[in-house]
Order: sequence, then structure tokens, then C-alpha cells
Amino acid sequence: MSRVVILGAGVMGSALAVPARDNGHDIILGTTPLDADVLEALSKDRAAHPRLKAPLDPDVDVRDADAITPDEVAAADLVIIGVSSLGIGWAADQLARLAPKAPVAIVTKGLVARGDEAPETYADALPALVAERGGTMPPFVGIGGPCIARELAERRMTAVVYAGRDEAAVRQAAGLMATDYYEISTSKDVIGVEACAALKNFLTIGVSAMMGAYKRDGEPVKNPVARAFQRAIDEMAVLSTWIGGEPEIAHGLAGLGDLHVTVGGGRNSRLGLHLGEGMTIAEIVAGPMKGETVEGVDVARSLSAGMREAKRRGALPERLPLADAIVAAVGGAPFDPRAALGAPGR
Amino acid sequence: MSRVVILGAGVMGSALAVPARDNGHDIILGTTPLDADVLEALSKDRAAHPRLKAPLDPDVDVRDADAITPDEVAAADLVIIGVSSLGIGWAADQLARLAPKAPVAIVTKGLVARGDEAPETYADALPALVAERGGTMPPFVGIGGPCIARELAERRMTAVVYAGRDEAAVRQAAGLMATDYYEISTSKDVIGVEACAALKNFLTIGVSAMMGAYKRDGEPVKNPVARAFQRAIDEMAVLSTWIGGEPEIAHGLAGLGDLHVTVGGGRNSRLGLHLGEGMTIAEIVAGPMKGETVEGVDVARSLSAGMREAKRRGALPERLPLADAIVAAVGGAPFDPRAALGAPGR
Repeated sequence: MSRVVILGAGVMGSALAVPARDNGHDIILGTTPLDADVLEALSKDRAAHPRLKAPLDPDVDVRDADAITPDEVAAADLVIIGVSSLGIGWAADQLARLAPKAPVAIVTKGLVARGDEAPETYADALPALVAERGGTMPPFVGIGGPCIARELAERRMTAVVYAGRDEAAVRQAAGLMATDYYEISTSKDVIGVEACAALKNFLTIGVSAMMGAYKRDGEPVKNPVARAFQRAIDEMAVLSTWIGGEPEIAHGLAGLGDLHVTVGGGRNSRLGLHLGEGMTIAEIVAGPMKGETVEGVDVARSLSAGMREAKRRGALPERLPLADAIVAAVGGAPFDPRAALGAPGR
Repeated sequence: MSRVVILGAGVMGSALAVPARDNGHDIILGTTPLDADVLEALSKDRAAHPRLKAPLDPDVDVRDADAITPDEVAAADLVIIGVSSLGIGWAADQLARLAPKAPVAIVTKGLVARGDEAPETYADALPALVAERGGTMPPFVGIGGPCIARELAERRMTAVVYAGRDEAAVRQAAGLMATDYYEISTSKDVIGVEACAALKNFLTIGVSAMMGAYKRDGEPVKNPVARAFQRAIDEMAVLSTWIGGEPEIAHGLAGLGDLHVTVGGGRNSRLGLHLGEGMTIAEIVAGPMKGETVEGVDVARSLSAGMREAKRRGALPERLPLADAIVAAVGGAPFDPRAALGAPGR
């Protein structure tokens, strides 16, 4: 029997317990301080995850992550980081404390600004955070692709990509997790997969804004949305290449596959709809989305200064109409749908 | 004043009269024998197109195409073929009779089987049809990209690509048609654009089938649909390259842009939904879609023998899971969603 330790019991971390358990592994699911509701609910009933709305196997060992010991993790074959980008510091704390040797697979998506430079992905940022805490990062495996957590937990057909520089670690992680409903392809281009996975949250804001900006009888008009979707993929390829990935990742599961699933659902999409309907970011965060974390907004902020400098130096094209419009809107400007489509001025 | 002659007054041919007229051109819109309803309705009221459901300018000259003279066409700066693939023979008849010298831009999408060879696009097939009728084909301009006709006629933001080997002809066509709501980019890769435009109808059947096959509470499950959408683009790139285009067209407006708009609306999508829900093609054409022409079905038939032979010779990969499943279903087999996703056997 193999052991999989999952750190973070939000929807995605918890959903990954399903294929792992179906493969017969011993699962420890560790909750973060933000998962108190999950810990309480699952302690009584494994079918009662308050956010996932799909049952977990009763044999999944759910507890506060702080109660997981380094010895238990030393016996693990895979560690999964299942937190949102808000929890990346917490995850680094746990990795430094628990010192796993097994590959660490991560669903957390985000970019970390580096002043005027291109931002970095967690493939580089997380090892640095672990090192700052006196730990050593085991092989990093990034997970990308279109995967709504609840659908995975319901064993719906899902296809994802596991990426890492350490091919043996990627194979090990994929071998432990793949099932007949959770298809895993592999890639060496971890920067490309991580960059596209973060950029899709950001670009979703712009595609969904078109659905808010162009409506007939309350329904989105399709031509501008399709145009924005295609532009999003073009700009994803340019930006992910600038960050250090290969451009073809944007055309794969971690790029257009995941963008397809992200547009039309979730927080990034809702924020975009509001922007397209004419609200400013200040109005949205004070109003309909008060208190919600929108990862694509953080990605926009991580891109902003680096994009400006890269354009100045010629490392990025002068105009990236969709990305520029999203960055401007996150900075406080009204969202301009015509400019975002790259349309000529009136 | 420039003159634009549009042959075919279905929804797309008629919609193209809107940007052309907004640019101040003299428009002749010629109806086919299948457009008798359009001719009758528009003769009384230019706002009463029975299928387009959007108004045309009263100054558009609508008449039976047979009443258009070669002299009128000799003065044209652009001829647009606006028929469906059913009407391609009629269009060739008209081109041979009218002998235009101006570029001919075409929205008709389809592939023509050539036995065991790769099928050809209308960029090659239409000139041959015109020549068979004793005529000479003027420069061919293919139109691709996400464009729902009604939205164009309502002047919604739309972006398309005009492609042709004769760059001056492409520039002329684009220059006559582009408006602030109808953005036109250009390409030399007319085979790629024509191939992708036809393939998107075919591949839409498979993506929409996933929406029929995988549902929860009557709503499509998103992970398998996104997976199929991404696979469709991969297979479009492979198939369009085999037909003679450049692979990157699949990632542009004529590829993923147009696929995005086609999935979820129209006949190809409805056929796919029924297949995904478990009906056979025979049941669909005898039942809910009786009498309807589904262009993606014709594309499947045009691909079938050539694909088989190309696989045998190694000119195509042995498995193209989505395309294979669509071809099999059009041939009468039940649609197999797992096989179409390329998922490993149970």
C-alpha cells in the first residue's frame, strides 16, 4: 500500500483523495487553519464536505495538518499541496516542518512578481520559500488542465497534465493518481504548465468580461466572446513563453483546455462579468464579491510591472490588447471591451 | 461607389450585405432557388428576412440571381458566394455564367472527397467546378472565423480572417468589407483556413456529443467537454495539415475561434448532442433532425476513406480518437464518448 499525504482540504485537495483512494492508497488529508469547517464536518461524516458537495471514502484519514508527523510523511510516496494561492506560505511552512522526500504535486496556481522582471511560477518560488524556512524542496510536480474539483470527486471523465523537471518523480506521481476517469499525461515543461495554469485565471477575467459587455436579451453575444477566447490563447502563448515556458503548452490541456472550463464558472469569471457590465474593480470588491479572493486579480498584479518593463525593452509586443485591458481594469480603470478585442478605434 | 454582388441570400450571404452597405457600396443580393421565401419577404420589406431576423438596408438590390447580368458583374469589385455546401454546384453555374473578374470571397465550407487521397477544399474544388462549366475562376478568397450571421447583421463585434493565394485580391476584399464592428485579418494560407472552417463543423459534432453524454441534473459536465474541445483543436491541426494547410491556423480565428462559436449552437451541435445521448445517426435523421442538412456529417463522409488510407500509409496517426469516433458514428455506429476522449479502456 502506498501513502498519499494531501495538505489542504479545500475542494481540489479533497477531490484528489478520490482517485488516490480508488487506487487503494492510504490517504492522510490535512486541513489548514482555513479549513476548520471541513475538519468539523468530515470528522462526523466523510460525505459531508461543506464545499465539495461530493462524498469522500470513510477510510480517508482527515485531521489538522499540524497533527501530521514527519515520520508519517517520511513513509509517503506522494505529497499533494491542495491550497489556494493564499495558502502558499502555509504550505511552505508545512513542507519545511515535515521534510518529505517523495515528490510534491501542487494544484496551487499563481505567479510571483519579481519587480521589473518576468514573474516566476511556484516551480521556482515554492522551493525558495521552503529554503527560507530551512527546508529542502523535494521534486516539484505541477498539475494543470481542466478539472472542476466536484466533477473529479464524482468520478467524471477528467484529463490533466502532470509536469516536472524530474521525470521519474512525474511518472511516480502520475502512476499513483491515474484512474480510468482521471487521465494523466506528462510534460517536462513545468514552467509552461504552471504559467498557463495561472494565466488562464487572469485571462478568464477578460473573456468573461465580453460576456458581460455584449449581451442580447440578457444572453452573451457569441462572436465577441469567441474572438476574446482565441485572443486569450494567443496572448497566453506569448506571456507564458516570456515567463519561461514553451508556447505549445497554451494549446494543450493546461492552456486552452483549462481556459475552456474556467470561463463561465468560478470567481475569475464572475469578476470579469461584473467588469464587462461596467462596474469598476473597487465597486466589485466592495459590493457583489466582497471578501472573495480572486486569483486572476493577483496574477494581474504580479504581471503588471514586469509586463510594462518587458514591453519597454521589446521582450513583449507593445500591445497585448486583452491582457492590457485586464491589467488596466484591475488597476482601477473601466474595462474597455473594444480595446480588449484589439479592435481598431472608432 | 464600389459594387458588391452577393450570390445566395441565406443568413450569412444576407448578413454580409450589412458591413458592405455600411461601407457605402452598391449591393446586389441574388437569391438561389432555395431562397424563394427570402426573395418574397425582402421584396416587400428589407427588415423581414425570414431566417436572419435582422434588418437589411432598403437600398440593397434583392432579386433572383438569374436576373443578374454579366455586365452588372463585370462592374463588380467583389463577388461573395453565400450559399451552404449544398449550393456549391449552383454557385459554380453562376460563376461560369456571370464570368466575374473581381475576387470571389466564399463563406461556403466543406471538403470534397478524392477517393483514397486527402480531401480537397473549395479553394481547389470550386475552380475545377467552374472550369467544368467552361468558366474561369477569378482569385479565390476564403472567409473563416467565428461569425454568427445574425450577430454580424446586428453589427456586433466580429473578427474574421480572409485568406487567399492572391494577396492583392485578399486585400481588396478585406478593404471593401472591414468596418469598425467587422474586423478582418488576412492570411495566405487559404487551404489551412478552408480546411479548419470545414473541420470545425465536423469536430463540433464530437465536442457537443460530450455535452450529451456527460450530464448532471440535465446540465453538461464540464471536464469532459473541455477535454474534448482541446482534443478537437489538436486533431484539427493534424487533419488540416494533412489536407495541406499550416498547423497554426487551427489555433487562430478560423480554428479554435470558430469552433468556440459553433459548439453549443446550430445543427452540427444538435446532431452531436443527440449522438451523445445515445441515438444513432439513423434515428436522428429519421427523427428530431429529419430533413435538415448537417454540414459536419458531409465532412465526415468526405474524410472517411482518405483518413483510412492515410493511416495505413502512416500519413496520419493511427488514432485520432475524436475524429475516429465521429466518423464511426456518422457511419452508423453508436457514439462512444470514452473512446472519443482517447481514454484508456476500462
